Amino acid sequence: MKFEIKDRDAAGRICKFTTKHGTVTTPNLMPVINPNKMIITPKEMKKLFGTEIVITNSYIIKKDEKLREKALKDGVHSLIDFDGSIMTDSGTFQSYVYGDIEVEPLEIVEFQKNIGSDIGTILDVFGTPDQTYTEAEKSVKETLKRAKKSVKIKEEMILATPIQGSIYPDLRKKCSEEVSKINSDFYPIGGVVPLMENQWYSDLINVILNTKKYLDPSKPVHLFGAGHPLIFPIAVALGCDFFDSSAYIKYAYDNRLIFSWGTEKLDDITELPCCCPVCSSFTADEIKKLQEKEKTKEIAKHNLYVSFAEIKRIRNAISQGSLWELIETRSVENPYLLQALKLLRIEENKIWLEKFETITKNKAMFYTGSQTFHRPIVYRIHKKLIERFIPSSKDFIVFPESVKPFSTFYSDEIKQVYKKNSKVNIIVDSSIGIVPIELDEMYPFAQSVFPEFVDDETENAITSFFNCFTKNSNVICWIGFKTLDDIKPNEKVFSFDIRRISAVADMQFCKGAGYTLLDGKVEIVKSKKTGKIRNIYCDGKHVLSMRASDGMFTLKLDGAKILHKCFKDPHLRVKVKNVAIDFIKDGKSVFAKFVKDCDPELRPMDECLIVDEKDNLLAVGRCIMNREEMLSFNYGMAVKTRENLTSDNN
Amino acid sequence: MKFEIKDRDAAGRICKFTTKHGTVTTPNLMPVINPNKMIITPKEMKKLFGTEIVITNSYIIKKDEKLREKALKDGVHSLIDFDGSIMTDSGTFQSYVYGDIEVEPLEIVEFQKNIGSDIGTILDVFGTPDQTYTEAEKSVKETLKRAKKSVKIKEEMILATPIQGSIYPDLRKKCSEEVSKINSDFYPIGGVVPLMENQWYSDLINVILNTKKYLDPSKPVHLFGAGHPLIFPIAVALGCDFFDSSAYIKYAYDNRLIFSWGTEKLDDITELPCCCPVCSSFTADEIKKLQEKEKTKEIAKHNLYVSFAEIKRIRNAISQGSLWELIETRSVENPYLLQALKLLRIEENKIWLEKFETITKNKAMFYTGSQTFHRPIVYRIHKKLIERFIPSSKDFIVFPESVKPFSTFYSDEIKQVYKKNSKVNIIVDSSIGIVPIELDEMYPFAQSVFPEFVDDETENAITSFFNCFTKNSNVICWIGFKTLDDIKPNEKVFSFDIRRISAVADMQFCKGAGYTLLDGKVEIVKSKKTGKIRNIYCDGKHVLSMRASDGMFTLKLDGAKILHKCFKDPHLRVKVKNVAIDFIKDGKSVFAKFVKDCDPELRPMDECLIVDEKDNLLAVGRCIMNREEMLSFNYGMAVKTRENLTSDNN
Repeated sequence: MKFEIKDRDAAGRICKFTTKHGTVTTPNLMPVINPNKMIITPKEMKKLFGTEIVITNSYIIKKDEKLREKALKDGVHSLIDFDGSIMTDSGTFQSYVYGDIEVEPLEIVEFQKNIGSDIGTILDVFGTPDQTYTEAEKSVKETLKRAKKSVKIKEEMILATPIQGSIYPDLRKKCSEEVSKINSDFYPIGGVVPLMENQWYSDLINVILNTKKYLDPSKPVHLFGAGHPLIFPIAVALGCDFFDSSAYIKYAYDNRLIFSWGTEKLDDITELPCCCPVCSSFTADEIKKLQEKEKTKEIAKHNLYVSFAEIKRIRNAISQGSLWELIETRSVENPYLLQALKLLRIEENKIWLEKFETITKNKAMFYTGSQTFHRPIVYRIHKKLIERFIPSSKDFIVFPESVKPFSTFYSDEIKQVYKKNSKVNIIVDSSIGIVPIELDEMYPFAQSVFPEFVDDETENAITSFFNCFTKNSNVICWIGFKTLDDIKPNEKVFSFDIRRISAVADMQFCKGAGYTLLDGKVEIVKSKKTGKIRNIYCDGKHVLSMRASDGMFTLKLDGAKILHKCFKDPHLRVKVKNVAIDFIKDGKSVFAKFVKDCDPELRPMDECLIVDEKDNLLAVGRCIMNREEMLSFNYGMAVKTRENLTSDNN
Repeated sequence: MKFEIKDRDAAGRICKFTTKHGTVTTPNLMPVINPNKMIITPKEMKKLFGTEIVITNSYIIKKDEKLREKALKDGVHSLIDFDGSIMTDSGTFQSYVYGDIEVEPLEIVEFQKNIGSDIGTILDVFGTPDQTYTEAEKSVKETLKRAKKSVKIKEEMILATPIQGSIYPDLRKKCSEEVSKINSDFYPIGGVVPLMENQWYSDLINVILNTKKYLDPSKPVHLFGAGHPLIFPIAVALGCDFFDSSAYIKYAYDNRLIFSWGTEKLDDITELPCCCPVCSSFTADEIKKLQEKEKTKEIAKHNLYVSFAEIKRIRNAISQGSLWELIETRSVENPYLLQALKLLRIEENKIWLEKFETITKNKAMFYTGSQTFHRPIVYRIHKKLIERFIPSSKDFIVFPESVKPFSTFYSDEIKQVYKKNSKVNIIVDSSIGIVPIELDEMYPFAQSVFPEFVDDETENAITSFFNCFTKNSNVICWIGFKTLDDIKPNEKVFSFDIRRISAVADMQFCKGAGYTLLDGKVEIVKSKKTGKIRNIYCDGKHVLSMRASDGMFTLKLDGAKILHKCFKDPHLRVKVKNVAIDFIKDGKSVFAKFVKDCDPELRPMDECLIVDEKDNLLAVGRCIMNREEMLSFNYGMAVKTRENLTSDNN
C-alpha cells in the first residue's frame, strides 16, 4: 500500500492511494456492490462515473455457496467483474442489523485474503450511539483484540481496522491511539450510520474529530457507511479520505433522489432540479411513469452522478483552496449541519485544525456568514497579530474600511501621518477585522472578499479582537486630515517599505525576524510595473523576495542563513536524517521518511530551514506537510527544496 | 397572448405563457441566438435542454442583406430553424455598446412584425448606471414616447416595452407606471447588464423592486440580459418571469464555465465540479485539450445545462414552497449578493413582499441563517400576533423551547397552569420566536426547522419581538412546577381546545373571528388516530375544519355565513361581477376577469367569502391571487370555490 499527499486544504487532502489493482485518488466514494443483485454493475460505474474503487461484502459472499465457490476459484474481481480496487466488509454491519452472524473473526480475514480482496476489513464490534459507556468500552476492547490478532495474518492484503467507541470521546481517542500503534493500514470510522440516519450531525462531527485527531495521519480514513453528499465536504475537511455508499441504491428503491443539499422524494418533485445525464434525459413525470425496475436504476444512476460530482467538487475546492467556503455554503442547506458546524468554534478544535491549514491559498477567502470568522486562518492571523506584531509606539490611528489595497487608497494620509510621527501605528478597521497597514497586501488581508456590512456576530468578534489588540494603547479614529492635530510630532524612524517588510517577516517567520533580516544596509527592488516590493537585499545579500500573489516572502538562502544563525533550534527547522544529507546537497526535495524532526510551529506552505541532525543548514524550502505528517508518512514530499548550500556557497 | 399563474412562492410564480408558437412555462430562460453564428442551434437546444423559447436580434438580421431577405421571405422561425416561440430584440443594446445605430424606432417594430417574431421589442433608450438624473429622465421620456407610438402598430405581435430609469427609484417607478397604462404586453427590465457585470447586486435588486412594484402584475417581466444563474432565484422571487442568456456562449469563448455559484475559468479547474452530460463525459484535462471550436461548444453546452437546471430547480422550489430557502442558500455563495439580500429587510420591501406570500406552504420552513428571520412570513406572523392575538389576561408564563409539538410536550404543565388559572397566557420562547401555546400546530410555528442555537442577529430579533409582545404584561418564566406558586388562582374560563380554535381563527381570519364563530354550543370532533381537532360545530352547524398539515382552518359554508354577517364589507370578501353570479352558484371557481374587488388583506391561499356586487354571500373558497393580481389578470383562477350556496341552502 502506498498513500501519498498530493494537495491539501483545511485538514483535508487529495492523495494517491495504491493497491494491487491500481491507484485511486482520494477523497473518493466506494459504491456498495451487492454481489447478489447488481442494479448497476461495477463496470458500468467505471464507465459512467469514473468509479475507481468499490466495496462489497465478504460475509455475504462467504455465506452463499455459489458466490463463495466462484470467489475462491476466480477471485472477487472476477466475481463482480471489476478490474479496479475492491474493498470488502466483514459482516459487522450485518451483525448490527440482524444480530448474531456465523463467522469467526480470523476466519473472515482469511477468507478475504483468499478471494483476493485489495482491502479487507476485520470483524469489529459495531458500537451504537445508545450504548452505555461500559458496553461501548467492551466493543472497543473486543475490536482492538481482534484487530491485533488480524494484523498478524493479513500478509499482502491491506487491512482495515474500524475505530469504535460510540459517542464517548475518550473511547474514540483510546481506540484510535491503540489502532495507530499496530500494523493496520486503513482506518474506517465505525458506528456512524445511526448518527447520519438521525441527522445527529453534531455527534457525527464530534466522533470524527475525536477519532481523527488521534490516528496516525499517514493512513487513509474511511467514514464507514457514509453515502450522503451533504456531509462529504465537512468530513473531508476533518480528514476523511473515503466514503462508501449504499445510499444510492437504498434511496433508489424508496424513490428518493439524492442532491447535494439532501434527499427528495420523487413524488414531491415537479421538475428535476439537476442537470445530470438522467435528469437531462427525462422530465420528472417521465421518470415517475417508468417501470419499477427501470425507475430504480435511473434514480440510482442519478444518485451516483450527484455523489461523484460532489466528490469532484470537493477535490476541486481542495486544489483551489476553497474547501471552507464549500463547507459553509453546504451547511446552510441543513439546520442540523449548520448547528454542528459550531463545534468548530471550540478552541481545541481550532487549535487542531490550524495545524493543517496552509499558510497561503490560490484563491481569495470568501465570506459566507457568521461561520467564516471562525475559520482556522482567522484564528491564526489573530494569534499571530497578538504574538508577533510589534507596535512602534502606543499610538494607533484607525482608518475606516476602504477600497483595497488600503495602503494605496490611503497613501496620502499615511504619508502625512508618518511625516508628523512615523512611530504611530496605522490600522484599518475592515470587515475582516484589524489590518495593520503594513500587512495590507499579505494573505488573507488583501485576498479576501467580505461584504460591506457583515453580520452582528462577526461584527462583535471584530470589536472584541480590536479591543484586545489595542488594549493599553492610545487609539485615535481617523476623521480626515484634521486628525493630524491629535498626533504628537516625533522624528522619522522607518520608511513604510521597511515597516512592511519587517511586519510581514515577523508574521511569517517569527517575532523579530524582520529586525534580524534587515539589520544592515537595506536595498529594496520594486516591480517597475506594479510598484510593489520584489527583492530585498541586506548588506548586498539577497535575503527575501516578496510574492505578488499573496504578499508573503520567499526566503532566499542568504536570508535563511541569517535566520538560522539568530533563531535557535527548533525554530523554522526541518531536520533530516543523516542518510538524506547528500540528496539535499544535490538539491533534491525532502521526503517524509527522511525527516528526523520538525519545528512544531511550521505549517504546510511555510518557508523552512532544512538542517541536518547537528543543525547544520543544508537548504531552504517550503513545507508540504506539518510536523505530525512529516513524522508519520512513509511516502511523499515533506519539504520542497528551493535553494541548497553546496560546497561553494557553504 | 395568454399569461396565467399556475403556482407561486414569494412574489415569484410559475405561469403558462402562450404565443402563436405554443405555450412556454415561466420562469424560463431564452438563450440568445446569433443568426450569423449558431454554435448550438435552437433545434439542438430544444433536444438537449428542453428550450421552449429563444431570443434573437432583429437589428442584426435587418442589417445583413442575406439574413434580411430570408427572414422577410420565410420568417424568423425558418431563418433560425426553430418552431418554438421567438422573441426579437431591436438594436438597443447595440446602440449602447457601439453608439449610434441605423434604424428608426417604428421601422424596427414593423420589421419584427414582418419577419413573424412572436415577441417584438421596441427600440428603447438604454439607461446606464452612470447616467445623471437628467440624462436618465431623458432616456425614460424617449423610451415612453417610442413605446406609446409602437403599441399602436403592433397588431398581432406581442410587444415588449423595456423599463428604463438607470438606478433612480422614482424614474423606474414613473416608467413602470406609464408603461402599465398603455397597451404593452411584456416588460423587460432594461439597463441592468452593467449592474450584473460589476456585481452591483444591491443596485440590481433595487432596480427590480422599484420597477416590479409599479408594473401591471398580469404581464410577464423579463430581466433583460440576465443570463447568470446566481441571480435567477432572487430575481424570480421578486417577480421576474424571463431571463435571456448570451452568457452561455460569451463565457464559453472565454473558457469560463457557469455554475450556480458563479463562473470559473477552465484553467483554474482541476476536476469538473458538475454532473451535467458534458462534465460526465470529459475530465477537466480532456476538455482543456479539445480543439478550440469543440471546446467552445462543449463549454457552451455545459453552461446551458447548468442554467436550465437552475430554472428547473427554481420552479421546483416554487411548487414546494421553498424558494426563500433557495435564495438564502444561494446568496451565501457570493458576498455581494449576500449584502444585497439585506435590502429585503427594509420595511417597505417587506410590506410589498408580504402581499404575495402564501398563507401556508407544502414544506416546512428551514432556517438558513440570519436572513431567515426577515422573510415575509415572519414579518406577517409577528404583525398578526401583535394585531390579532387576544391575551386572556396580563399574565404570561414563558416555557422554554422543547420538542414539537409544544402543547404535547408540555401537556402536564399546561393542565396544571390552567387548573390554577386558565386566564394565564402560555407562550413558548422558541428558535422561531414567540409561540402562543394555542398556535403551536399552526403554520409556520410547527412546520419549521430551526437549529437549537440560532445566530446572534436572530436571537436579538427574537428578544426584541418578545419585549414588544409582552410589553405591559406580567411575565413569569417557567422553571418547573414550583412556578405554579407564582400564579394567582382564578376560576376556569376556557378549555384548551376552545382557546386553540379561537386563537387560530383570529390569526387566520381577523381579530374576533374566533369569538364570533364559537358564540353558541360548541362541539369538537377529533381525529381518533392523532387526537387532533378535525371538525368544529357551533349550535349544530359545521363551521370549521382544521387541516392536519398546517394547523389552519378550512372555512365551511356555515362558518362563512357567520363571518359574513358579523364582519362588514370588505372584510374577507372577494366581490364578483354580476355576470359571474350564475357560474358561482353552479359551484364554478372565480376567474380573475370576473373579480370586481377584493379585501386588500386577503393573501394567496387565504380562505375567503365570495360575494356579489351587493355583498350577498355566494360561496366560500380559497384565494389563488392577492387583490392586485385579481384586479389585473385577464386569465387564470382568482379563487377556488369550495362550497357554494344554492337555492336550497341559501
